[in-house]
Amino acid sequence: MTRSTGSEDGIRVAVSTVILTMRRDGTLRQSQGSAPRIALPLVRRTRDPHAGAWALPGGWLDAHEGLAAAAARTLAETTGLAPSYLEQLYAFGAVDRSPSRVISVVYWALLREDLVDQQLAAHRAAGEEIENVAWFDASALPDLAFDHADIIEYALWRLRNKAGYSRVAQGFLPPEFTLADLREAYETILGRRLDPANFRRQVDATRTLIPTNAFRTGSHRPARLYRDATDVELADRGPLAPEETRTS
Amino acid sequence: MTRSTGSEDGIRVAVSTVILTMRRDGTLRQSQGSAPRIALPLVRRTRDPHAGAWALPGGWLDAHEGLAAAAARTLAETTGLAPSYLEQLYAFGAVDRSPSRVISVVYWALLREDLVDQQLAAHRAAGEEIENVAWFDASALPDLAFDHADIIEYALWRLRNKAGYSRVAQGFLPPEFTLADLREAYETILGRRLDPANFRRQVDATRTLIPTNAFRTGSHRPARLYRDATDVELADRGPLAPEETRTS
Repeated sequence: MTRSTGSEDGIRVAVSTVILTMRRDGTLRQSQGSAPRIALPLVRRTRDPHAGAWALPGGWLDAHEGLAAAAARTLAETTGLAPSYLEQLYAFGAVDRSPSRVISVVYWALLREDLVDQQLAAHRAAGEEIENVAWFDASALPDLAFDHADIIEYALWRLRNKAGYSRVAQGFLPPEFTLADLREAYETILGRRLDPANFRRQVDATRTLIPTNAFRTGSHRPARLYRDATDVELADRGPLAPEETRTS
Repeated sequence: MTRSTGSEDGIRVAVSTVILTMRRDGTLRQSQGSAPRIALPLVRRTRDPHAGAWALPGGWLDAHEGLAAAAARTLAETTGLAPSYLEQLYAFGAVDRSPSRVISVVYWALLREDLVDQQLAAHRAAGEEIENVAWFDASALPDLAFDHADIIEYALWRLRNKAGYSRVAQGFLPPEFTLADLREAYETILGRRLDPANFRRQVDATRTLIPTNAFRTGSHRPARLYRDATDVELADRGPLAPEETRTS
């Protein structure tokens, strides 16, 4: 077995996070139309390689921190965000993905739009500046550094795929939501309209939603609010212990 | 953003592979019974940490090779095996998983039993010795080094899970097989008996098997041989390009 003698092999480990939310406002860069969009924050690089290009939030792994902790820490440091759901996506390690040899362990995360706004408002209130960050419509991305365009494409594929067999779409919604909210989240993820009656039947069949006694009123007829039946994670990760994301 | 100044951070990157086959003979260590078993090769460690313990085949990532290429290379070097299917499982990076800081990018692979025997026979014929390797029943593993017991448990969960929504079970079978062969592969993966008539109906519904004009004859009544309808990969990996596994 070939053995390197240590880390003078020049291989470095970075972490990055694709953090997705669903936004319905018009503040996204390069976005058109008013339907809700899958959106994500990108960070403008201030140094080479790829100075000036947009990149995923991330940074170097510290020798004394776990991978998920590093993802959470670098996400907080660059964007001020703390996700409600964080899962490892993939380790990207093509030899030519960076001028030096960098293995990027990439996480993906979901965050509700109202928490995005809440978290960013808290930073503003504390006088903390989040610089060089902008939110983009996932379907209208700018030029990206490294292989980050491929990474985001893969994360969106994973989200669409996972929406088919897990409750991951609820990661975009507050604890109480209407069936129309839930259908809209699925429609935004899948990029197509769903028949309301069929959607309701499918949701009923899963028996994972509990009707509350509350209704949303407004310009439409009152819509019942539902909440999730379980407190378990949004997707089954099997025997993989939830990774420690506490940053030391 | 915290930046390390290079790889003097002491973090090293290793690759390991959980390579699974289905064996029906009695040569597995610690195995009982004659039903086919999910089996995997383990390598006895000859040096510390964990000298004498069994470990997954693997080794250090070389600075000039891709991750999948490193998995294929270290698998070949330690066990003499070349898998028919190789996919990234997960990057394991807990701070305390090894006395020094090692990120292990783990792959999982499937290999048909007849190819295992063929590949090992070719090595013997060439006078190449494969040392310190033994095959184990996945449900009767010995004491394992590092977090390799958790890693194998996660790989088996992924296999069971993936068998539910992909054709991955066919990775254990030769190109032509009977429906009983296929059912047996699923039964072995899932660890429970499947009703033959239900199984046939489900397979028919997927329309992915093509009946051939050949039959297997033997002690039972002749059974028709089937082959897979497509040449595509056994599981949809989405936009993730198949990784280059050629070793340079």
